[in-house]
Amino acid sequence: MENTYADRIERIRDMMRARGWNAVVISGSDPHGSEYIAPRWHQVAWVSGYDGEGELVITLDHAGLWTDTRYFIQASRQLPGTGIALHKTRVPDQVLIPEWIAAQAAAQTEEYVIAVDGNCQSSGSVEAIAQACRDAGCDVGDTVRIVNAPDLLDGLWTDRPGIPATPIMTLGDEITGESRQERIAWLRDVLEEKGCDAMLLTALDEIAWLLNIRAADIPYNPVCISYLLVTLDEVCWYVTKDDFSRPDEDTLDSFDEIRREGIRILGYDEVAYSVAGMAEDGSIGRLYADPVSLNHNLHTILADVNLVLGPSPVPLRKALKNPTEIAGMRDAHLEDGVAMEKFLYWLEKSLAFGDIVTERDAADKLASLRAGIPGYKGDSFETISAYGPGAALPHYITPQQDAPRLEPHGLYLCDSGGQYIFGTTDITRTVPLGPCTPLEREAYTLVLKGHIDLAMAVFPKGTAGCQLDVLARNPLWQSKRNFGHGTGHGVGFFLNVHEGPQDIRQNFNRQPILPGMITSDEPGIYREGRHGVRHENLILCTEAGRNDFGEWLQFETLTLCHFDTSAIVTSLLTEDEREWLNAYNRRVYETLLPRLGEAVATWLEQKTRPI
Amino acid sequence: MENTYADRIERIRDMMRARGWNAVVISGSDPHGSEYIAPRWHQVAWVSGYDGEGELVITLDHAGLWTDTRYFIQASRQLPGTGIALHKTRVPDQVLIPEWIAAQAAAQTEEYVIAVDGNCQSSGSVEAIAQACRDAGCDVGDTVRIVNAPDLLDGLWTDRPGIPATPIMTLGDEITGESRQERIAWLRDVLEEKGCDAMLLTALDEIAWLLNIRAADIPYNPVCISYLLVTLDEVCWYVTKDDFSRPDEDTLDSFDEIRREGIRILGYDEVAYSVAGMAEDGSIGRLYADPVSLNHNLHTILADVNLVLGPSPVPLRKALKNPTEIAGMRDAHLEDGVAMEKFLYWLEKSLAFGDIVTERDAADKLASLRAGIPGYKGDSFETISAYGPGAALPHYITPQQDAPRLEPHGLYLCDSGGQYIFGTTDITRTVPLGPCTPLEREAYTLVLKGHIDLAMAVFPKGTAGCQLDVLARNPLWQSKRNFGHGTGHGVGFFLNVHEGPQDIRQNFNRQPILPGMITSDEPGIYREGRHGVRHENLILCTEAGRNDFGEWLQFETLTLCHFDTSAIVTSLLTEDEREWLNAYNRRVYETLLPRLGEAVATWLEQKTRPI
Repeated sequence: MENTYADRIERIRDMMRARGWNAVVISGSDPHGSEYIAPRWHQVAWVSGYDGEGELVITLDHAGLWTDTRYFIQASRQLPGTGIALHKTRVPDQVLIPEWIAAQAAAQTEEYVIAVDGNCQSSGSVEAIAQACRDAGCDVGDTVRIVNAPDLLDGLWTDRPGIPATPIMTLGDEITGESRQERIAWLRDVLEEKGCDAMLLTALDEIAWLLNIRAADIPYNPVCISYLLVTLDEVCWYVTKDDFSRPDEDTLDSFDEIRREGIRILGYDEVAYSVAGMAEDGSIGRLYADPVSLNHNLHTILADVNLVLGPSPVPLRKALKNPTEIAGMRDAHLEDGVAMEKFLYWLEKSLAFGDIVTERDAADKLASLRAGIPGYKGDSFETISAYGPGAALPHYITPQQDAPRLEPHGLYLCDSGGQYIFGTTDITRTVPLGPCTPLEREAYTLVLKGHIDLAMAVFPKGTAGCQLDVLARNPLWQSKRNFGHGTGHGVGFFLNVHEGPQDIRQNFNRQPILPGMITSDEPGIYREGRHGVRHENLILCTEAGRNDFGEWLQFETLTLCHFDTSAIVTSLLTEDEREWLNAYNRRVYETLLPRLGEAVATWLEQKTRPI
Repeated sequence: MENTYADRIERIRDMMRARGWNAVVISGSDPHGSEYIAPRWHQVAWVSGYDGEGELVITLDHAGLWTDTRYFIQASRQLPGTGIALHKTRVPDQVLIPEWIAAQAAAQTEEYVIAVDGNCQSSGSVEAIAQACRDAGCDVGDTVRIVNAPDLLDGLWTDRPGIPATPIMTLGDEITGESRQERIAWLRDVLEEKGCDAMLLTALDEIAWLLNIRAADIPYNPVCISYLLVTLDEVCWYVTKDDFSRPDEDTLDSFDEIRREGIRILGYDEVAYSVAGMAEDGSIGRLYADPVSLNHNLHTILADVNLVLGPSPVPLRKALKNPTEIAGMRDAHLEDGVAMEKFLYWLEKSLAFGDIVTERDAADKLASLRAGIPGYKGDSFETISAYGPGAALPHYITPQQDAPRLEPHGLYLCDSGGQYIFGTTDITRTVPLGPCTPLEREAYTLVLKGHIDLAMAVFPKGTAGCQLDVLARNPLWQSKRNFGHGTGHGVGFFLNVHEGPQDIRQNFNRQPILPGMITSDEPGIYREGRHGVRHENLILCTEAGRNDFGEWLQFETLTLCHFDTSAIVTSLLTEDEREWLNAYNRRVYETLLPRLGEAVATWLEQKTRPI
């Protein structure tokens, strides 16, 4: 039996031979450097059948997938038969794509041609390949050539989906706390400080934030595929705007509102030549862009423009939520908390009644409860609804059909979140469905200790997330337990559930955690084939006063959903941790009470009794 | 009244005008990049009267001292009248010397000449100045010139001390656990891996470690001013060796022993031309050197040699103590602990009898107790003996005369250490001399919590010190207290009390803490004008087993001296911390008991009763 993917790879090789290419890189991203991507850019999945994160490199005698620890199990299930080898990243002795290709190129005596899909490869990543080749002693531009081949799969992938163009909405100042004109003015000030007179924004959440617009072009990410040019006296938005693609009233109203503010709306495809033209006629002098999200193709076309590459100033500003955004996030967590408590009540009662509940049923039930919330615009990522061994995979995908059934014992893990027009949520609860083993109870308690210790942190201004990370890990480390993912990621305001620049993890990210930043707090313990535990709340960084020793910061927990106390080994908690837990559960109960029906309220009162 | 230092600066300016220099950098280091320096290189102190760490820049209209937070108070006391401005480093918005000079140079329309003492300025630091000038838009080499002016103060500093040349001893394998031939063979393997055929070692503790030699050329650092060239078939040691400078038997025996192993001993001054000559005649191809300790002058002379600059491999290897070194360090801490306990007994009894004891008396008493230990070779740094407000200065210098008297109340801090031929110690005890204020008791307890929490750490292999640092700070942070210095530094084996590459601090040092490394654990709290608390032990990293979650490490405390329990606010300790403290004090008592007289033993039994 022939393998579809092995066949596709052979057809790519036919193309390579025809064009004289020695290696092709298939990107896992889109033209905007996005983490989540629309189906049009599922190129790695189309070629390989593997649908996790990662990138492919195909040569005439090798095909490899590069991905990290989170996806090793998934890759090892999906790759067999395709002829694709797994190249592990985030492991000791990893060889990343640039170095791997460079070694191939350096071993060649003749010309070596590397083709990249310049649309989906960032300018930074292509430069990394070039630099690795130079480091390996290759003469890049001469014996080693990197060919920009945008949409190189188009000839083979005949039913490839188009560029998404969903309805676009605008958000008013009463929701975002700041008008697009204020944000544009801020960006212009930053550009002047940098000695630039224009910036090309390429990352989709940065554009959505700056323009106060939202769409649904990418699943779970309420963004709109577009580019944005901000000069000192003009703003040009490059977006799919024809009546065929976006015929809806919302979009037309949004376009009208935006045009009335003097912002020009141009076609998505016009960006390169429009910007190049403005550089040529002198309307742009020094153009700022971020090489992480500027794609190689655009970079190539803008070769004659005076480009200044550097990190975008938008992510930090966007991460510092203003009071209106914070109020919205609090509301979102109130509504989301009610849905979560109703869900947990339903879960407990259904199992008690002996109903058959699968992981999929549970995920669907939770989605339907969130869908009832006014302002709900979808989930913020695909719900991880995982019972027992499934929960041991931090990035488990709940099957659509024949999902495992929840049993009235052991641990059920549910990691989910909602997008509301006033905020974004992300919560994980690990729920004891009945009797638990000692190892399950230990894991449940140790992870909760780590979660609480980070939530209780007080720290001097200037402290980075990587300097706080150990607070969540130390209680686990004391028992020689650990987890292989980050402890916390930034969360957008009705935007991407993952955003920078801050995080809380072991990487050396120097960005301090600052007031207004919202980050997750989600330690875990995973035992392959047995169980997984993760406890996740979102925490808001707030001021904690100033004294002789400096300025102090702390966290306020935004998430409102109780932690089940039945699986806790109380003797493992310190007095402070126990007090934190009791106070948190009490706050959840008291805050949600006015919005709960009698049955759920009575149940929650019992679930939140102090231990 | 004229100021000596203002006058010296004017004489330097006369020289600058005569030679056409616009700026002069006066280094705070020596030709080997040392942290502690011999009197010959106290150039900053000779020019400015300030004798802490720091560097000076003198221009025709400005004189500035650059130093960090530890020395602000000292500088503000010693600089008035000199005309020297204090430039603060390790503060937000710091402008370091390279950027400061570059700004001066960039503001100049004519030629700008910067003179550096190439002997005492590392090649890396001179390159940093050049790079900053280039970044500021200057044409380095043309309008901006950096002039190598070794020993530029010689004409003015007429009674400048010579290069020290103290007796040199060798250490046998029974002490170091490894012969110099084994260490040389290891280095040759590393060089071959790097594709180099020689290394010029320039850091003094690296040379002492590799050759298993010790001297006393620098106060507190048992090193010998020298250079060492290791090629694949030769070893050349460049050291002051004439009979006039080093006439002693020990040195002659050491030289004989070393020569018998085929190591060539050449004059200290011969290094540059000897190495250059070997490069010219082809005995050296690619020469490895570390730009942090290679001085600019040598770098300049070796301009035609094929130099490969990079971090020296020696510090990491040296930091990973072998079993013999670890056994020696344990012995050193046993002997040192006995001296410390005798000292603390003497202190308590003297004050109880109403004797007059000054900070200086206490320091002298401790030194005399250490001096009685066989193998004692001096202190490992200048003892900080500080009562009350003095202890609030982490780098307090105890006056030689009229030192403050210890009162029978409040806190006395003593930070000290010894050099023994079998190891190096570094210990701080903060001693309650009688009743303490609530703030003193709180500080004493919180710092002890931080100390204990780090000492109790268990962590996965690969964890860096900066990822553990918060363990020592978190108990302080919870009460909004902090300290402005690192938590831990590496400690040498009968070598420098400060060594790399590891440390435990908030800097982003990626070096993991590995088995065999010895590091200090010394959090503190300082209240200007009131009191200071620091608790310091040395901790050895050891293996802690392997399980499903990976490989685990932990710390073993080497220091053996009880912590006084009388100032502890017991309710602030967790159960785990209290147990650690009781177990540690019990271990100290039981381990030292066989070596204590009856009076001290009885007293220590009482001091170490569990709380």
